[in-house]
Amino acid sequence: MPESFYKNHKEILKKAQATIESRAYWTPYPESPRAYGEDAPKEGEAAFEDRLGKRFALDQAADSWSTGGETSAYGRDLGVSYPVVPVTAVLDAAEIASNEWASVSIKHRAGVCLEILDRLSRNSFEMAHAVMQTTGQSFLMAFQAGGPHALDRGLEAVAYGFGALTRLPRKMEWEKPQGKRDPLVISKTWRIRPAGIAVTIGVSTFPTWNGYPGILASLVTGNPVILKPHPATILPLALFVETARAVLADADLDPNTVQLAVDTAAAPIAKDLVMDPRVKLVDYTGGSSFGDWLEANVGHAEVFTEKAGVNSVIIDSAEDLKGVFRNLSVSMTMYGGQMCTTPQNVYVPREGIHVAGEHVGYDEVASGLAGAIEGLLSDDDRASDILGAIKDRAALDRMDEAADGHAVLLGSREVANPQFPDAVVRTPVIIGVDGVDKEAYMREMFGPVIYVIATDSTQDSLELATESALRHGAITWLVYSSNPEVQDLAEDAAVDAGVSVAFNLTGGLLVNQSAAFSDFHVTGANPAGNASLTDPAFIAKRFRVVGVRKPA
Amino acid sequence: MPESFYKNHKEILKKAQATIESRAYWTPYPESPRAYGEDAPKEGEAAFEDRLGKRFALDQAADSWSTGGETSAYGRDLGVSYPVVPVTAVLDAAEIASNEWASVSIKHRAGVCLEILDRLSRNSFEMAHAVMQTTGQSFLMAFQAGGPHALDRGLEAVAYGFGALTRLPRKMEWEKPQGKRDPLVISKTWRIRPAGIAVTIGVSTFPTWNGYPGILASLVTGNPVILKPHPATILPLALFVETARAVLADADLDPNTVQLAVDTAAAPIAKDLVMDPRVKLVDYTGGSSFGDWLEANVGHAEVFTEKAGVNSVIIDSAEDLKGVFRNLSVSMTMYGGQMCTTPQNVYVPREGIHVAGEHVGYDEVASGLAGAIEGLLSDDDRASDILGAIKDRAALDRMDEAADGHAVLLGSREVANPQFPDAVVRTPVIIGVDGVDKEAYMREMFGPVIYVIATDSTQDSLELATESALRHGAITWLVYSSNPEVQDLAEDAAVDAGVSVAFNLTGGLLVNQSAAFSDFHVTGANPAGNASLTDPAFIAKRFRVVGVRKPA
Repeated sequence: MPESFYKNHKEILKKAQATIESRAYWTPYPESPRAYGEDAPKEGEAAFEDRLGKRFALDQAADSWSTGGETSAYGRDLGVSYPVVPVTAVLDAAEIASNEWASVSIKHRAGVCLEILDRLSRNSFEMAHAVMQTTGQSFLMAFQAGGPHALDRGLEAVAYGFGALTRLPRKMEWEKPQGKRDPLVISKTWRIRPAGIAVTIGVSTFPTWNGYPGILASLVTGNPVILKPHPATILPLALFVETARAVLADADLDPNTVQLAVDTAAAPIAKDLVMDPRVKLVDYTGGSSFGDWLEANVGHAEVFTEKAGVNSVIIDSAEDLKGVFRNLSVSMTMYGGQMCTTPQNVYVPREGIHVAGEHVGYDEVASGLAGAIEGLLSDDDRASDILGAIKDRAALDRMDEAADGHAVLLGSREVANPQFPDAVVRTPVIIGVDGVDKEAYMREMFGPVIYVIATDSTQDSLELATESALRHGAITWLVYSSNPEVQDLAEDAAVDAGVSVAFNLTGGLLVNQSAAFSDFHVTGANPAGNASLTDPAFIAKRFRVVGVRKPA
Repeated sequence: MPESFYKNHKEILKKAQATIESRAYWTPYPESPRAYGEDAPKEGEAAFEDRLGKRFALDQAADSWSTGGETSAYGRDLGVSYPVVPVTAVLDAAEIASNEWASVSIKHRAGVCLEILDRLSRNSFEMAHAVMQTTGQSFLMAFQAGGPHALDRGLEAVAYGFGALTRLPRKMEWEKPQGKRDPLVISKTWRIRPAGIAVTIGVSTFPTWNGYPGILASLVTGNPVILKPHPATILPLALFVETARAVLADADLDPNTVQLAVDTAAAPIAKDLVMDPRVKLVDYTGGSSFGDWLEANVGHAEVFTEKAGVNSVIIDSAEDLKGVFRNLSVSMTMYGGQMCTTPQNVYVPREGIHVAGEHVGYDEVASGLAGAIEGLLSDDDRASDILGAIKDRAALDRMDEAADGHAVLLGSREVANPQFPDAVVRTPVIIGVDGVDKEAYMREMFGPVIYVIATDSTQDSLELATESALRHGAITWLVYSSNPEVQDLAEDAAVDAGVSVAFNLTGGLLVNQSAAFSDFHVTGANPAGNASLTDPAFIAKRFRVVGVRKPA
């Protein structure tokens, strides 16, 4: 069976390779929960419930067991405990596993990766509950972003890695003419040399979606991976580790090729892990301060970061202002603004804008947006589905500090979650500020905080958004303009700022969403992160090539 | 005409792109001087002579003129002076040029790069004299390595860069099904965002061969380049800058897209250049200490290094020991051991080796190698052609210190160059040491120094060579063994050590030579350098991609 992993999944791999070239829509992992059969929801929920209050039975050597700092955003008592292994023991085990994993053929290694993704896909309901409870996402978001969309991103990384590894001919005869003499003929082969031990440092919000790309990119290129989840959000990555180790065991390979390493906020182990000279790859998603530290201090390894950013909406003009508000109200509120792609700042000229030829004042735009958000979230049930829950209390503090003397256009409202009364659910606070008060809004306020910023002009809006992106990072821009010249200016500004840009979204597509195989997530060109999911640079240094020459 | 650059050269670009996939032998730049026509040698020499004692008339704004620290290895008085521009002025000019260069279409940018290479190719004789005089290479090496082979490496980088830039579709419509509703349809384009200003810090030995890859990779991906030559070896890169600026001017583009910045050893400017935050790419070839400094201190830019290494020959057994000596004697002496690919250390089991079934003792192997080298270099004229000249007096000091009490198997001999009596020409000193005396030989002794090392066994030889590579870097290994099992062991050791390996070379191919489009130069996997010429990683971070989404 293990040898058949590649055979079983190679059509999916080929399709993924073709799709990263065409950038078309495609997925082998359905995003509709209905596609998984009638029994899947209940079985997944039961599997999740069965984890609670127990040891998570990974077959890693454990000195002790710990729940880390894991909590539920919905007020449940999870009580899952994980094996605790000393950092050096984890690294030693990874080092032992590394030789075997490097020697596995590229196809077989890709087959193992694809089998892991396939088994995880069949378990997307359990994963959905794990992601929902540990992150505060709504169930549907947790299902889609935690399951199929994360698997897409993992598959995308496998496709890029497999392509990079198989680009060189397996063997060739190099023949150089020598005039009248016999040609020089040399037999050449190339060997892949994986970089070394890889460490993934997980994020609390989208542990699988942000984690799989680096994990799978490292695995397919031959590196063992240690997963160090966020101490408050462990279960989703533990499920990945469990599945990966089962696949490795079925393939008669060392399960320590993939290991879990948990810690607590009080006794963090990330620095001890990454500063070991055997670690050659570090993938990090999370706050800027530790990301900056990694970039500055880990000289012996390649460091791939996705950190924080301040995302901007620039409103210049529109044909359908209601459509603008409809789109923005969802985009800015889903998961309570806790997506790294959520727009935070909305720039509007204080002179107002043109809407289908009519002038609409700044106040009308600001209050229209606030009203659309208020309306969308007026019903507690629907608001709960959209907003999810807030686990990180620091987000509540930020909400309190967000106005800082500026005008509150819409106050935050406490929402009662009908199913989980202990869940902390808040509608966003919306604040109006002047563009010159940069310190008020040119900062990341992760969570349900929105600024509407009055500017001198659209040109001023673009300059402020560019400054913000280059200083504080940005992952998304959304520009509304009916003017092709303004669109061109905005596109050029986005290139300068290193930010992906979308225009005039009023329909079903939200700027928050980036599609695997098609959209790059983070450009790597501003402080929001140095890596892009997934481009060739995300793969290229995870392995090296050693040339072998012999007389033919 | 400028618009036709791409059209004129696109077949060469396509062939280069196909060749980096096939890895076959190919070049558009003939390595035989005879291929350039009867008049080319004299015209090239005259052009070179006409440079001497004059200002090198680049059209860069110059505050003053300086000869840098340029000297001839053959004792000639060069006296070429170059424009001196303050570092900030050079950077400012590059920044001004950057927007235009980034906005040039990919094809036109590639066309400019290809036209530069084409014009340089037509000037390979002048370049040969410039390289010969400033580096001490023989004329033929200076012609081939400084001209066509360097152009091959530049073209290779253009091919990789062009492929990376054109991988994404120009524009596509992304269509996602929405069940019974209309599909989401989004129009997508992608914009290239060049990294920023690129700085190339040139090396004294192979300024064009080592310089062109990074320079062309940066140029084709849209970055302006500042060339900071080694203060003692300026003219070859100045010739590149002159040609590049002429092509840019012909294309109505800002010539400051390519600039020269000279300095002296007493007042170096490399740190001032690279520490400017506008610099985002640094390509360096040279000694390890400054390369290590760059890797450790330049956090705001991508740093690509080729530093020093200690290359090894491992002799286990052979069918044709005379062929071994014949190949090694050339490989280890050409250009007086001043190639970064020259083998320095020869490991031989002290029990001796098997040659075509017969036992040959260690002493016989060591003295056989010494004798072959002595014989090859016995005639001054031939020795001069092979050895070239030594410009760096530190190499002479190293020769004096090389034995350090160990047995001298062959002393160095002063050779009189028949044409240039002031040239410093030395045959190598060959020293016999025991493998346990690591401090004697496990160090780079750049220049004509060879160690023959007695080991416990071939296994011991491989372990010592691996340790040496991982501690001090290595670019080439050459293994002689008739035993397939030993070959496999050696290949695995080379992968661990991150060193390209060749086996049983007894014919015309020398381990020093790496062929563009086929062989990677440096693996990036040991301290000899973090970059590989040219692999996808050498290109990937020189630009970023910004996605643009609009409703279709």
